[in-house]
Amino acid sequence: MDTKIRVGIVGYGNLGRGVELAISQSPDLELQGVFSRRDPAAVQTVGETVSVYKMTELERFAAEGTIDVAILCGSSSGDLPTQTPELVRWFNTVDSFDTHANIPAYFESVDEPAKEHGHVGIISTGWDPGLFSVNRVIGEAILPEGDTYTFWGKGLSQGHSAAVRGVDGVADAVQYTVPSERAMDRARSGERPQLSTREKHVRECYVVLAEGADADAVQQTIVNMPAYFADYDTTVHFISQAELDRDHAAMPHGGFVIRSGHTADSATQTIEFSLKLTSNPSFTAAVLVAYARAAHRLADSGATGAFTPFDIAPGLLSPKSPAQLRQELL
Amino acid sequence: MDTKIRVGIVGYGNLGRGVELAISQSPDLELQGVFSRRDPAAVQTVGETVSVYKMTELERFAAEGTIDVAILCGSSSGDLPTQTPELVRWFNTVDSFDTHANIPAYFESVDEPAKEHGHVGIISTGWDPGLFSVNRVIGEAILPEGDTYTFWGKGLSQGHSAAVRGVDGVADAVQYTVPSERAMDRARSGERPQLSTREKHVRECYVVLAEGADADAVQQTIVNMPAYFADYDTTVHFISQAELDRDHAAMPHGGFVIRSGHTADSATQTIEFSLKLTSNPSFTAAVLVAYARAAHRLADSGATGAFTPFDIAPGLLSPKSPAQLRQELL
Repeated sequence: MDTKIRVGIVGYGNLGRGVELAISQSPDLELQGVFSRRDPAAVQTVGETVSVYKMTELERFAAEGTIDVAILCGSSSGDLPTQTPELVRWFNTVDSFDTHANIPAYFESVDEPAKEHGHVGIISTGWDPGLFSVNRVIGEAILPEGDTYTFWGKGLSQGHSAAVRGVDGVADAVQYTVPSERAMDRARSGERPQLSTREKHVRECYVVLAEGADADAVQQTIVNMPAYFADYDTTVHFISQAELDRDHAAMPHGGFVIRSGHTADSATQTIEFSLKLTSNPSFTAAVLVAYARAAHRLADSGATGAFTPFDIAPGLLSPKSPAQLRQELL
Repeated sequence: MDTKIRVGIVGYGNLGRGVELAISQSPDLELQGVFSRRDPAAVQTVGETVSVYKMTELERFAAEGTIDVAILCGSSSGDLPTQTPELVRWFNTVDSFDTHANIPAYFESVDEPAKEHGHVGIISTGWDPGLFSVNRVIGEAILPEGDTYTFWGKGLSQGHSAAVRGVDGVADAVQYTVPSERAMDRARSGERPQLSTREKHVRECYVVLAEGADADAVQQTIVNMPAYFADYDTTVHFISQAELDRDHAAMPHGGFVIRSGHTADSATQTIEFSLKLTSNPSFTAAVLVAYARAAHRLADSGATGAFTPFDIAPGLLSPKSPAQLRQELL
């Protein structure tokens, strides 16, 4: 690698921090700076020598041409829909936009300015959407007679954890979404069952009771909570605050994409892709960084416009040359 | 899909038959004919209306321009090294060349005539090389600090089955290579063990004894056979010829690609891809057909030369349009 790919991180929460860490594992990338809405003096980066700038300084960097790819780490609801169409005028961009229903409109909103200003914007990287989506496409393309099953977890769910914490008598809590082993076995079997999201997952709650609370009442309130728990197989474990702090501070996640189908000789064929992540944000960040490499290369080859992981050849994600990949990994 | 992609099958063994079946599940592809070295009258295709031609007639089809992609189903040792560089002058080609060590030279031998004659040749599709290779690249690109483990099986091994059948006292036999559960668990754990091929796999033999043979002697000869079994954990099951015929006639295979690594926050992250195939040749054929679709599209977009699965964007494998894929599967 002769010249390093110069990267800017836009937005610095858990994901931005993960991107900083992932760049430290990628010798072909160089971090030019972190851009935040907060006062730069108040932003504590992981690395000691990382420069932090105000978001408003991005325009200067664009004028100077010192950033090859901007990795956008803002939220899909509040930040990206306005930010990406703006920033793709100045930089190649990569993001993990994950509001599935709005992806087609978001794609168009990025595509037009990217083409007009000669940049590449790769949207919806990460793992779902992202790696899981790629596996859904591959599974369906190879086994057209089949069904695709996506299972999520074991993973911490922020929304459901908050719902449990809202119950009277609960001092603190976390909730995990867990794939149902029985549903996964059925998906893999070739019987091609119809499975709803609620059949595919069970819910596990770890709850710290408030002083003097009635455990039975709390348990009943949780498992019967409409929308969140009532239709699921829900387990409630009562633990101490010390146990919660010690054992449930991480942000694990993961899941499974299973394609089960039949070739025309009636043979059952199963393709399965899975992730088991101890830290969801740092893995998502590592995916963003690999796609940043691809964005830079695509732009270098003259491509412009919006792209998704479906448009990215796997070799573009690797720092190795095509000849090296053929030699070592094919 | 307006115009169908017109396909020729070159070579008609198990793999060619699988390609014929896979095309029958792909409404956007149309089989123009099967090309064989054998007398066409002696070739029994699965479909009743399939035209069979002599291999020498390919030149006429090239002149008439009635085949978009030739799917090459010959062997990696005897056929492809000479056949592909010849045929890529006339057609876009797809193959499953799987002699790993010779891939770089084979790539070059296809690349030059493909470029000269304006065609696309996608080499080494299938599952290993192929889908497994793609997952090795993705795993390494996303988790640069990590190790990749490829396990094969449970799968029928032709070479090892023949070795068992060669033992005195054996009337018939099959041998399966099976991934070691213990080794897979270690690979997934994040401890990043060094595992040799023999530590990763165990061997299971299903043996029909010859009349009057000594089971103990046969068992000892098999498990102590150098190179084939002596260094493996080998199990021998004695069964009847009827059981062998009933339960072991299929050609199952599959395997696992596990990438286990750590992001820079020391979190253990695991990516796993696996296949469980009831019929190895018909699955490999289905992969070839999806890559044939990609070859046609690449050529349509003006690309020429040799390509590998590393160069193929996942969306090109699907009959769906990019907009439809974004809407339905991202």
